[in-house]
Amino acid sequence: MSTLTIPHVIPSPQEDCEKLHTAFSGWGTNEGDIIEVVTHRTADQRNAIRWTYHDIYGEDLLKSLDKELTQDFEKAVLLWMLDPIERDATLVNGAVKKWAPHDRVLVEIAVTRTANELLAVRKAYQEKYKKSLEEDVAAHTTGDFRKLMLPLVSSYRYEGPEVDSGLAKSEAHILRKHIKDEEYNHEEVIRILTTRSKSQLMATFNAYHEEHGNPINKDLKKDPKDDFLFALRSIIRCITCPERYLEKVIRLSMKNTGTDENALTRVVTTRAEVNLKEIKEVYYKRNTVKLEHAIKKDTKGHYEDFLLALVGSEEE
Amino acid sequence: MSTLTIPHVIPSPQEDCEKLHTAFSGWGTNEGDIIEVVTHRTADQRNAIRWTYHDIYGEDLLKSLDKELTQDFEKAVLLWMLDPIERDATLVNGAVKKWAPHDRVLVEIAVTRTANELLAVRKAYQEKYKKSLEEDVAAHTTGDFRKLMLPLVSSYRYEGPEVDSGLAKSEAHILRKHIKDEEYNHEEVIRILTTRSKSQLMATFNAYHEEHGNPINKDLKKDPKDDFLFALRSIIRCITCPERYLEKVIRLSMKNTGTDENALTRVVTTRAEVNLKEIKEVYYKRNTVKLEHAIKKDTKGHYEDFLLALVGSEEE
Repeated sequence: MSTLTIPHVIPSPQEDCEKLHTAFSGWGTNEGDIIEVVTHRTADQRNAIRWTYHDIYGEDLLKSLDKELTQDFEKAVLLWMLDPIERDATLVNGAVKKWAPHDRVLVEIAVTRTANELLAVRKAYQEKYKKSLEEDVAAHTTGDFRKLMLPLVSSYRYEGPEVDSGLAKSEAHILRKHIKDEEYNHEEVIRILTTRSKSQLMATFNAYHEEHGNPINKDLKKDPKDDFLFALRSIIRCITCPERYLEKVIRLSMKNTGTDENALTRVVTTRAEVNLKEIKEVYYKRNTVKLEHAIKKDTKGHYEDFLLALVGSEEE
Repeated sequence: MSTLTIPHVIPSPQEDCEKLHTAFSGWGTNEGDIIEVVTHRTADQRNAIRWTYHDIYGEDLLKSLDKELTQDFEKAVLLWMLDPIERDATLVNGAVKKWAPHDRVLVEIAVTRTANELLAVRKAYQEKYKKSLEEDVAAHTTGDFRKLMLPLVSSYRYEGPEVDSGLAKSEAHILRKHIKDEEYNHEEVIRILTTRSKSQLMATFNAYHEEHGNPINKDLKKDPKDDFLFALRSIIRCITCPERYLEKVIRLSMKNTGTDENALTRVVTTRAEVNLKEIKEVYYKRNTVKLEHAIKKDTKGHYEDFLLALVGSEEE
């Protein structure tokens, strides 16, 4: 569920645009007003604001925001203002261009989005970058990672609830065999993880656990520092428990001295209207600290205010 | 261009349904009337007939046709009556289920269709078969063919006209290297053929020809009986000259004693509303015999009449 709070009476896009335009005017910028407008509107409402702003002032709102804001706050607002599909395409492109084996973004977007969302991201990617996502992924990855990431971003998984329990057992057995032999990059492992429906894979992982004694991810921890094993575990976690996976991304982003603002901004902006409420609940259970308190402690200034407005706070 | 001829005054779907229903009634079936109705209507008009028939008579028109018609004529009419995307999904499913290394259908549909058509076929496949196309392809193919067919059916190629001529040269060089070393199944060969846009690949094949002296397909003929090389050549021909490729499928379907009705029916029904006119022109140039004359010679009865009605005939 969404953490967004929308006012009972929603100002018209014209009114919102005027408020934003005034916030940009004069000496200094009124960041508070900007936050107040943009964080309490749905994606459709923000889109309407963007187009209305262009109609009234003849300028792209994103360009104005880019001029007025700075640093992490700027990055976060710009990402937030994009249409969700366009935002994912932008994130994926950023990840592909500076791809490294420990990258988390590609797996996160390819697996936690629905099949139709991922397809829409591929379409938006082509419109924006004049290339297909898969050719860019192929061009920027190598070896085992290419073998894994290419079918992963090309997948259009079936999303029905049907499960073939015989198939689940036999594919659990195939997975077990290759994991035992440490053939983690085996084409069968990749085929199963990248083509089967999420419901089917849940059954397969359950069968794996029952028949072979361990949850599959435990058996994929032989070398905790191996990036390929990490990618496999991430895929499995994004399938089985996306909220817990994303909670961990947030948790790790604030773990050490120095926050990983990119990761924090990414999860908050992309999930605020989807399942950030559930992620917050998982966060609280896991850390006995509310996410909003953790963010307060770890960030500051307008960036902090912006994130807190999106994350929302529930009174105790 | 389409070879379909549509009457100036098109009967309403109701009138068409009544004519069909009468053709089914009484002793024997009036195949002539059935052909007259279904072969002179566009896909949208045939769809309207199908739904109207269901509304009026409470029966699926396809089931009625199935009961009334037989053999190749029946198969052809049933295929023709399907919505084009649903028809491709059906053809692909048939091909996947009895897949063999010399199969032509998967490559034909995956490569000659546009990126958005292929995507729509994948969606229709899921709705109809409760699985993704790629998991079925993965489950029914093995070895090098799986490595090739899986990304081929998962591809969503960019279709813009942009060409990077530097990239064309460098990828022509990569292709040349692996072809020379007879590493036809190399992941780079597969990556280039399955992910690059058709415009880009045209430039790459041209660069290959210029720099290395032979058209790429000539260099892929080392062993003319090898099924994998045949698949690679088919992919390349479907990209560079789909009409010539499909002309050959038709030509071979009538070459020997005993017609390959499946292939003939497939190309005629799937291409009649797309580019059968161009295929006919290529056929005439290549064989100095008109396609309609060849069909007349090779087929008979209602099946012959049906194909001829779709192929159309131009007066000399």
